[in-house]
Amino acid sequence: MKEPQLPETNLPRLVIIGGGFGGIELAKQLKNRPVQVILLDRHNYHTFQPLLYQVATGGLEPDSIAFPLRRIFKGQKNILFRMAEVEEIIPEHQTLKTSIGNINYDYLVLASGSDTNFFGQSEIEHFSMPMKSIPEALNLRSMILQNLEEAVIEKDKEKRVALLHFVVVGGGPTGVELAGALAELKKHILATDYPELDIKQVKIYLIEGSANILGSMSAQATQKAKTFLEEMGVQVLCNQRVLSYDGEQILLSDARPILSKNVLWAAGVKGAIIKGIPKEAITRGNRILVDEYNRIKGFSDLFAIGDVAAMLTENYPNGHPGVAPVAIQQGRTLAKNILKIIKKEAPKAFCYRDKGAMATVGRNRAVVDLGKIRFQGIFAWFVWMFVHLMTLVGFRNKLVVFVNWVWSYFSYDRGTRLIIRSFSRQSMTEDTAAK
Amino acid sequence: MKEPQLPETNLPRLVIIGGGFGGIELAKQLKNRPVQVILLDRHNYHTFQPLLYQVATGGLEPDSIAFPLRRIFKGQKNILFRMAEVEEIIPEHQTLKTSIGNINYDYLVLASGSDTNFFGQSEIEHFSMPMKSIPEALNLRSMILQNLEEAVIEKDKEKRVALLHFVVVGGGPTGVELAGALAELKKHILATDYPELDIKQVKIYLIEGSANILGSMSAQATQKAKTFLEEMGVQVLCNQRVLSYDGEQILLSDARPILSKNVLWAAGVKGAIIKGIPKEAITRGNRILVDEYNRIKGFSDLFAIGDVAAMLTENYPNGHPGVAPVAIQQGRTLAKNILKIIKKEAPKAFCYRDKGAMATVGRNRAVVDLGKIRFQGIFAWFVWMFVHLMTLVGFRNKLVVFVNWVWSYFSYDRGTRLIIRSFSRQSMTEDTAAK
Repeated sequence: MKEPQLPETNLPRLVIIGGGFGGIELAKQLKNRPVQVILLDRHNYHTFQPLLYQVATGGLEPDSIAFPLRRIFKGQKNILFRMAEVEEIIPEHQTLKTSIGNINYDYLVLASGSDTNFFGQSEIEHFSMPMKSIPEALNLRSMILQNLEEAVIEKDKEKRVALLHFVVVGGGPTGVELAGALAELKKHILATDYPELDIKQVKIYLIEGSANILGSMSAQATQKAKTFLEEMGVQVLCNQRVLSYDGEQILLSDARPILSKNVLWAAGVKGAIIKGIPKEAITRGNRILVDEYNRIKGFSDLFAIGDVAAMLTENYPNGHPGVAPVAIQQGRTLAKNILKIIKKEAPKAFCYRDKGAMATVGRNRAVVDLGKIRFQGIFAWFVWMFVHLMTLVGFRNKLVVFVNWVWSYFSYDRGTRLIIRSFSRQSMTEDTAAK
Repeated sequence: MKEPQLPETNLPRLVIIGGGFGGIELAKQLKNRPVQVILLDRHNYHTFQPLLYQVATGGLEPDSIAFPLRRIFKGQKNILFRMAEVEEIIPEHQTLKTSIGNINYDYLVLASGSDTNFFGQSEIEHFSMPMKSIPEALNLRSMILQNLEEAVIEKDKEKRVALLHFVVVGGGPTGVELAGALAELKKHILATDYPELDIKQVKIYLIEGSANILGSMSAQATQKAKTFLEEMGVQVLCNQRVLSYDGEQILLSDARPILSKNVLWAAGVKGAIIKGIPKEAITRGNRILVDEYNRIKGFSDLFAIGDVAAMLTENYPNGHPGVAPVAIQQGRTLAKNILKIIKKEAPKAFCYRDKGAMATVGRNRAVVDLGKIRFQGIFAWFVWMFVHLMTLVGFRNKLVVFVNWVWSYFSYDRGTRLIIRSFSRQSMTEDTAAK
């Protein structure tokens, strides 16, 4: 009975899978152009992933960092949104199997982003918490707050300590930001809201496999971020592999085991590929090999952009970094190229303009690399906030996030530490299945 | 292993069940007084119920109308919060059985509020949507948005129409506000965001069992609210009982059946009583009979306030209305009386000061009764907003709600129409069980 109910037109049809940074940029660039654009996403909103950690730590409402996809494209006649889960691509028939029926395409773009990579360690996958979507960030928030409530009533010292130890695995921007936010939560919230707890028992660890946190940034940024974290009381452990985690204790390759019921996994991502992409087009980290026009290896009508794409170039022999600017720029270039391809003109090769990288550690503490220009501290923190505010989709979101940040800055509070839905392993499994 | 871990003191211990309006007012009034107060709630936050309908219809984030209970009482040494589900009261042992272990009390106050009353109609309970908690309001929001997405792809006309018909049962303030908000959603959002839908097929019905909506307000308010709703396109059907609802079609006693997949149940509440209260103390609507000091019939150390209490007086032979001001005033009076009872002084009888009633229908449209002073329209709407903003707990919440309202007023938009967690009957049952 269900059918996508897509209007028939004479225009070629471009289907985009995923309403992340790349997908929405591509669609936006094609408004009022001679192509019918169908955007598919399993959610009805775009998620601003860089601020998920603030949702997880009670600094922001989930609604503030998400934006309804239908609203982005309102009034644009050639762009349609459908909420759907894509099950399989059948390239030989130019067809997608989806949860709302089959959809035909003339051109297909995978902008499906990335999922958390547990590197095949199923025990860790089961017991640790990922943070790649709003439901996952909310689960994380609920788990942290539930464990604090549990710690208040736990008599057994070892068990209580495990509830109060927070281990963040992965020293990239997400891990650094999460560890910093937890340190602030400890300092400004736990000390006053949980008088029953011995605040000295609350410990935050950041575990990194390589020699440095923020390995993709400058040595200066790396060093300063570590200093910031340590000033805030985070124990940074580098050169550590996680050997195992059984839900109670995490074993490291080169340090003492840590008792912890809160292990947050930010150690890696892998491309969110879809059934039907041939194996030979898939490379390291589950990314899809594309040429310099973002065309998937072996196809003329299939494209991939953003996190899920691996475009191996001279400057980026392992593919581009999985960050928003790459996805946005690829979306923009591909929009022009699709129009050229339709007109049978030659497409233009993608060239990434790296504008730099930044990460925030906490109040007045951030690190910014803009090419050769590098700075850290309070000015970097303001730059970080400004860039993130400006990149957020929607004026209401900008406004509400700004109000929350100003309020938090002066009050030292985090307003939204509510367990809206209680977390259990059970419910997480369902979310993951249903997301 | 788990234990409430409550500190031993020489003070008498007062346990409060429920962090609603009554419970938090009672606890606040007892700060720094010679009594140990233990506040229990199944959630870690206080919910501002009067604005739940805005969460359900995408106008506000859930975090804006909730406030962490621990934060309300931070720094108050004689008040402790524990997140717990109360399973049973054992009055003869002055003990509570809870999900975190047994808790003894010297005095116990039930401030557990009310649940949705389906009047024993289990089929309606299964298929219609209640809205008494934040998880329920979010389920409602998700269901509405999912049904709209479903309508977009539904080919069968009858099925599509059922997805686009909204039936609100119950013409009290909640039902009126919900129906009004849906009418605004239709007018300002659906028309632009869902170009695929025939907006004329979207219909909103408000069903009321008695002769008038807002029956507890003045005839003037009642009449004007009806006019407002009809101007906004809501079909108001009074003198209608709901005979049945099978998930597809709702049968009414005196009107044609309505096809609808969206039946929102706001037709009644019943006291949220707890096992262990003797039957003879329970009266109509599951409320607990109390004397003029809020003491439960037959006990000297058990009290009930707010929605769950029925204090039958000359002016209120059926008990006081289930509204926030009653709960707050009873909490305040009981605080004084508890201190008197501890000192073996005579308590003072409760006397309700009715400050009036109000309801909002939509933009620039509200009705207010303040004793003999009655007004409707834009000024009433501003009064309604001001009173609700001022009653919201927490400065951040006031600020964020204010910003959202100002923004919505000028943009005609509702920012938060996101399906954060998808709704299914299955997940609802779990929430209800777990709430």
